[in-house]
Amino acid sequence: MIITMKKNAPRQEIDRLLRELESQGISATEIQGTDYNVFGLVGNTTSLDARKIEGLPFVDNVQRVSAPYKLANRVFHPEDTVVDVGGVKIGAGQPIAVMAGPCAIENRELTDQIACEVKKAGAVLFRGGAYKPRTSPYSFQGLGLEGIQYMAEVRERYHMPIVTELMSADKIDEFVEHVDLIQVGARNMQNFQLLKELGRIDKPILLKRGLANTIEEWLMSAEYIMAGGNEKVILCERGIRTFEKYTRNTLDLSVVPIIKQRSHLPIVIDPSHATGDRKLVEAMSLAAIAAGADGLIIEVHTDPPHAASDGAQSLYPEQFASLMEKGRAIAKVVGRSL
Amino acid sequence: MIITMKKNAPRQEIDRLLRELESQGISATEIQGTDYNVFGLVGNTTSLDARKIEGLPFVDNVQRVSAPYKLANRVFHPEDTVVDVGGVKIGAGQPIAVMAGPCAIENRELTDQIACEVKKAGAVLFRGGAYKPRTSPYSFQGLGLEGIQYMAEVRERYHMPIVTELMSADKIDEFVEHVDLIQVGARNMQNFQLLKELGRIDKPILLKRGLANTIEEWLMSAEYIMAGGNEKVILCERGIRTFEKYTRNTLDLSVVPIIKQRSHLPIVIDPSHATGDRKLVEAMSLAAIAAGADGLIIEVHTDPPHAASDGAQSLYPEQFASLMEKGRAIAKVVGRSL
Amino acid sequence: MIITMKKNAPRQEIDRLLRELESQGISATEIQGTDYNVFGLVGNTTSLDARKIEGLPFVDNVQRVSAPYKLANRVFHPEDTVVDVGGVKIGAGQPIAVMAGPCAIENRELTDQIACEVKKAGAVLFRGGAYKPRTSPYSFQGLGLEGIQYMAEVRERYHMPIVTELMSADKIDEFVEHVDLIQVGARNMQNFQLLKELGRIDKPILLKRGLANTIEEWLMSAEYIMAGGNEKVILCERGIRTFEKYTRNTLDLSVVPIIKQRSHLPIVIDPSHATGDRKLVEAMSLAAIAAGADGLIIEVHTDPPHAASDGAQSLYPEQFASLMEKGRAIAKVVGRSL
Amino acid sequence: MIITMKKNAPRQEIDRLLRELESQGISATEIQGTDYNVFGLVGNTTSLDARKIEGLPFVDNVQRVSAPYKLANRVFHPEDTVVDVGGVKIGAGQPIAVMAGPCAIENRELTDQIACEVKKAGAVLFRGGAYKPRTSPYSFQGLGLEGIQYMAEVRERYHMPIVTELMSADKIDEFVEHVDLIQVGARNMQNFQLLKELGRIDKPILLKRGLANTIEEWLMSAEYIMAGGNEKVILCERGIRTFEKYTRNTLDLSVVPIIKQRSHLPIVIDPSHATGDRKLVEAMSLAAIAAGADGLIIEVHTDPPHAASDGAQSLYPEQFASLMEKGRAIAKVVGRSL
Repeated sequence: MIITMKKNAPRQEIDRLLRELESQGISATEIQGTDYNVFGLVGNTTSLDARKIEGLPFVDNVQRVSAPYKLANRVFHPEDTVVDVGGVKIGAGQPIAVMAGPCAIENRELTDQIACEVKKAGAVLFRGGAYKPRTSPYSFQGLGLEGIQYMAEVRERYHMPIVTELMSADKIDEFVEHVDLIQVGARNMQNFQLLKELGRIDKPILLKRGLANTIEEWLMSAEYIMAGGNEKVILCERGIRTFEKYTRNTLDLSVVPIIKQRSHLPIVIDPSHATGDRKLVEAMSLAAIAAGADGLIIEVHTDPPHAASDGAQSLYPEQFASLMEKGRAIAKVVGRSL
Repeated sequence: MIITMKKNAPRQEIDRLLRELESQGISATEIQGTDYNVFGLVGNTTSLDARKIEGLPFVDNVQRVSAPYKLANRVFHPEDTVVDVGGVKIGAGQPIAVMAGPCAIENRELTDQIACEVKKAGAVLFRGGAYKPRTSPYSFQGLGLEGIQYMAEVRERYHMPIVTELMSADKIDEFVEHVDLIQVGARNMQNFQLLKELGRIDKPILLKRGLANTIEEWLMSAEYIMAGGNEKVILCERGIRTFEKYTRNTLDLSVVPIIKQRSHLPIVIDPSHATGDRKLVEAMSLAAIAAGADGLIIEVHTDPPHAASDGAQSLYPEQFASLMEKGRAIAKVVGRSL
Repeated sequence: MIITMKKNAPRQEIDRLLRELESQGISATEIQGTDYNVFGLVGNTTSLDARKIEGLPFVDNVQRVSAPYKLANRVFHPEDTVVDVGGVKIGAGQPIAVMAGPCAIENRELTDQIACEVKKAGAVLFRGGAYKPRTSPYSFQGLGLEGIQYMAEVRERYHMPIVTELMSADKIDEFVEHVDLIQVGARNMQNFQLLKELGRIDKPILLKRGLANTIEEWLMSAEYIMAGGNEKVILCERGIRTFEKYTRNTLDLSVVPIIKQRSHLPIVIDPSHATGDRKLVEAMSLAAIAAGADGLIIEVHTDPPHAASDGAQSLYPEQFASLMEKGRAIAKVVGRSL
Repeated sequence: MIITMKKNAPRQEIDRLLRELESQGISATEIQGTDYNVFGLVGNTTSLDARKIEGLPFVDNVQRVSAPYKLANRVFHPEDTVVDVGGVKIGAGQPIAVMAGPCAIENRELTDQIACEVKKAGAVLFRGGAYKPRTSPYSFQGLGLEGIQYMAEVRERYHMPIVTELMSADKIDEFVEHVDLIQVGARNMQNFQLLKELGRIDKPILLKRGLANTIEEWLMSAEYIMAGGNEKVILCERGIRTFEKYTRNTLDLSVVPIIKQRSHLPIVIDPSHATGDRKLVEAMSLAAIAAGADGLIIEVHTDPPHAASDGAQSLYPEQFASLMEKGRAIAKVVGRSL
């Protein structure tokens, strides 16, 4: 951490601060400049509050040199993490894991139909929404536990682990019992209470990036879960919010190489929510594979025009099958399978 | 709602859609264009899912004409809402309500000290964080219930209702018992589960705007609470996320006249979190009053350099007193008091 | 275009507006709603100013149904445009065109060296900056005409057409004489005066997307050039500005399928400026090819640490060669060559 | 400037870099950390290219401690700059300068009418667009020189200096002859060629902030003009681009105290373009005055519904007069006049 003092910072105040830091095991080296005095801190600065120091009247600014996350940081954990989700291994060196299914679980028959289609095309996990976060209180809110039970039937019948979104801590037991991969949605990425609770269980977590969260904040949210003892975290990019109006969100594919470089956690891409438009899903899926993603999560529906939610972005089964075929060829080029 | 069909949309498909809409009580008028065919829908379209219709293969796009919120909409509720918070009336035509106090409650003595100072300067509500949402799991997480109890003591001693943030639904009973105004933080603005639970209680809610949420989404979150039966909602702007790096967030003051025009709910401004910088708080507070805000929520600390959280943005008591004095003069110009 | 009137809009005013529109050859169909009256306009609305109508006191809002661009619009020009740049054909159905070279042209020897390397690896155009847009007036501003002359030598020696950025209209003659593909930089995307002048010449233009411009505005800038008579426009995405701090800009790859769908113009990706980081360039280049891009423009330098500009994002020649090899394999999967 | 080396950076490489820096008069202090080695540079680092150093393979990151602008920096120029525009003094300690007039100059009569109205209400400069930057090539592009001549007549008749936008360098002589304050529009804020030319003349410049430019980039653009010798720069905020859809842009009022703190240049607010909506202009104007702005630039039209451009955001004369009256009262509270 680098502290820049103001031009006329009183020596006495500076010394008091340095003594305080020293008492926390942190030593400081001074760099005397013409217009500023700068101090470099050495020691474990992870728990120092940069903004608090910046608030001191004689301090000009404070900058972090090392990342504020430890457990999610590749520097301290160089080998790749591979997460086992009900027998499916997700992470570097593994086949690219494709998770597919409807946006919302609507009924038993449709769920079975869609599962059958995505399994046939090569999906290894079944996705679906049982509890649905909806912007409007007047929209369909999901079947809840009933929906999860239909998904559990799919798991038995098609041997596909299931992934679905958890919206509140009071349902954690239900999810631990029935679900293989617990999704934390974009809107809950900084629901710290929920993250803490998930740190205490022994189930893989799919942590979606918030619509307006930096990669650093995302890794800090992973850190929350890991600090609680649960290191089975898979990151998922699903588009960020920008000024562009022709897409629902802007898919930030550069996260793939960045996460690979800064963290050891697996990274999965969700092209369906990122674009909000079926016509863009194939191109973005292939791009994600080429960029090095460890997995994809894609919405598929046998009757998108009548889907209970997000029909506009759901693929038809034949579109999904065609995407899988092309994806396989591209995976091969980048040294993976699918 | 306006539906634009593609150039060669099959008449049969269009007719099927129109019949489906008709069965929901919605009638359509056709506008035959050169390159597109457009249909205008008349009826209650609030519960129609625009994106679902947009997903139909023969539809080009769908646009809403009326806002998707009803209860929060001034069109259907022309008179201003005034919310009573423990005897303090907040809303149009009322004195501008200033809520002040530390970012986090740290201990009994400090709490009392700060409360005494802000009361003296003219604050009418006492703010403080008991449960703290922190980006890092290694930062101070708040005193919890103990903190709320110190705040409750302040209420008795200084006759100031209290406002503090609720982070999870399992604490609702605790908050209903002890707190006068329950704050929903920016990161929970779309925690729909929490919003639903808050719709069932009879306590005023301070609903902060999410860091990357549009005004429309914000009003939809208010709608969630109101649809549950709790119409005591106060909106609070605290800055949005942009590319700018010299401030923590960008304070969007235009929400003040926009909310006044589109909704009947009171609007409060939080200049402390919006700027993240004590040196900007006074200017932004005065600007908010000039723009017509119904209230302010400001962080004040007697010893900011040693505050447990957000010291950089907390005012010294004398700065707060000076702000209040200038604010009073500006309030008068815009026909309010403070 | 759809005009929504306010609830109590005076009939007389509405009629006056409709008559005015009619005199411009535009007819209106009325949709009588409960809370609003809506009019759908039929005719050539391209030259109508939506915001002007929206400014009328009795109008609630105005929405466009059709895109405001005509010449760049695929609806009116269904077949793909292929642009011939000094013999290299760029566009759908053609080999993916890779343009490579240093950020800035520094001297004759280095220019030759780099050109030799990129040619060997398979680049078909040579890129380089002669006039450099720099945020700081104290940074290297480019060699100007001298730089273009070194590039022209490269063209003769290696048979590669050249692309370089034009910063002001007074240099157009120089560029028409010496340059094969004239680049309009992101910061000049809405320099309308410059766009108009480029509409009058007969040279291909590489139009970069502005840092904060929507796809629609970008196509409108293409329309400026095309409306002047020059239809040889190639679009180039180079990252947009978002809140993320780990990359210089956010590469928006979804523009590839979107441009293909809405326009007939070729689309090229610049992964170097988009990421600002050499370590991310390969992944993003392969992703762009997989997404369907018609070309790439990549910075390569034989000694990046001592490059006069943007060394951090320039590839070493061997990295570029390796990228080209992988790119070739991916291009094949999506039915292209490279 | 702070350079952080990678963990295993070869000592030899580090030494070579340090010697290179030393030869430029810059000395380095080392801070030996556990995971990183950090060097603090002392000397004039303004002309160092941070990104170039960051590109070195053994460097982890580079951070600036001091701002990259010198001439626009308050640290090196503590007293406020006051710019004289045709006799009207703009800057700290002076009356708040209100510039008003139509978006576009349309004809002589209208120009006179509007000027008469804004003069009467208290405007001290007359604004108007003669050369108009328009997103669409099919929109009205302005009267050009003819428009400027009508403005010049207004100056004589009403004794108001005039401000209008310059779109290209070839018109500079025309502007130097006829215009009192030359506006650089948001879309040209980083048209560096134009900025350089403006550095060579002796006329005040109104430099608008780009739609997606940081405050630092904005000050760097001011630095371009000042480095050429023209220090008469006035900054103008006109809204930035965000995800919000209820306003045209998001007015960032926090720039007022930030510019006051970091620079000595005057700061003016444009509420008309920032909001794009007449109904929001008064509230934002009063807020700007309360925040400490040195001036306002506001669009006024006698017949907004028929304005040739931006009628939706133009005030009626009586609205402008009422705004001025309230503004006067608020200016008094913050120690200014208007």
